[in-house]
Amino acid sequence: MAGPEIETLIQMLSRLPGLGPRSARRAALYLIKRREAVLDPLAAALGTVAERVRPCSHCGNFDTSDPCALCADQQRDDSILCVVEDVDDLWALERSKAFRGRYHVLGGLLSALDGIGPEDLAIPLLIERASAATVAEIILALPATVEGQTTAHYIADRLKAAESAEHPLKICGLAHGVPVGGELDYLDDGTLSQALRARRPV
Amino acid sequence: MAGPEIETLIQMLSRLPGLGPRSARRAALYLIKRREAVLDPLAAALGTVAERVRPCSHCGNFDTSDPCALCADQQRDDSILCVVEDVDDLWALERSKAFRGRYHVLGGLLSALDGIGPEDLAIPLLIERASAATVAEIILALPATVEGQTTAHYIADRLKAAESAEHPLKICGLAHGVPVGGELDYLDDGTLSQALRARRPV
Repeated sequence: MAGPEIETLIQMLSRLPGLGPRSARRAALYLIKRREAVLDPLAAALGTVAERVRPCSHCGNFDTSDPCALCADQQRDDSILCVVEDVDDLWALERSKAFRGRYHVLGGLLSALDGIGPEDLAIPLLIERASAATVAEIILALPATVEGQTTAHYIADRLKAAESAEHPLKICGLAHGVPVGGELDYLDDGTLSQALRARRPV
Repeated sequence: MAGPEIETLIQMLSRLPGLGPRSARRAALYLIKRREAVLDPLAAALGTVAERVRPCSHCGNFDTSDPCALCADQQRDDSILCVVEDVDDLWALERSKAFRGRYHVLGGLLSALDGIGPEDLAIPLLIERASAATVAEIILALPATVEGQTTAHYIADRLKAAESAEHPLKICGLAHGVPVGGELDYLDDGTLSQALRARRPV
């Protein structure tokens, strides 16, 4: 039973994903005990982010500039657009250093159950961006779930409908298969059968 | 690969107990997306706590007032002093509503390994508080670990040495036994044998 100020902090911390009420209490106490080393820097970092970070109006990434650093980077390939569900997927792809094109963040997936339609996501903006003459390929890097694949099919249909003979578009999805370092006997049947069907000569 | 402002926030969040680097990244994104609903209130709560919460100079609890609300409460029993390792233990005891006396937070346990001696903890202050004529009983609510019991024994010895015929002190520890709702076959041998030795007629 801490005072109301501390209880408010505990409640705010418990809203973070990954922190339950018990760990939020522990985190609050940790912060109070390390005011100068942890609490003040965290408050400052939150303030800076709140004040300066905004979604990029082009791709939907979060950055302090708009267009974001990735959209503004002249070295990146304008001809490939990689479509992701959310900013954390964009961050993951950037960490892999395997992609040097442009991104497009949808901000979610289509879901009839949750009433999320194409207009609730950045799909109209994607169709518009894909119509630019420089764009030659769209990679739909969406999760291999029902909602992810429904969204990918919907977007592919819309893109094909907008395609013209003068501006053809290559539309791809990510490859499915055995994860690098993955043990076969821990893999689900779906992944294994996909990996078998897409087998490649060594 | 987020911008430096976001990376700083992720790094600060990952210092919290219970949040690893991966969940800190997820929490940062969650905060950025819910600026008004979560990020701003969390920043405000941190600011309030940083500005107003201080350790109580009497008992070591954290509060916005000094003496804290528990020390200032005239309804509480001055004759019993409950000694705890840390503020979270105090909070847990308060939640149980089973104790209406005063608290004393040590701020840690004696540890030869980590070089923590009596002077590093609030032990001298405890000896001083225990010498007050109003105090009749000391409850050593310390963990049932080697360090907890070493600390309890050390404090009991110091208190007994300071005791006088005019001011006798009752020194207690918490009871050991089967936790309420606990299954016998999941309990460790130590707890079971303590529960057997301390058996009571029903």
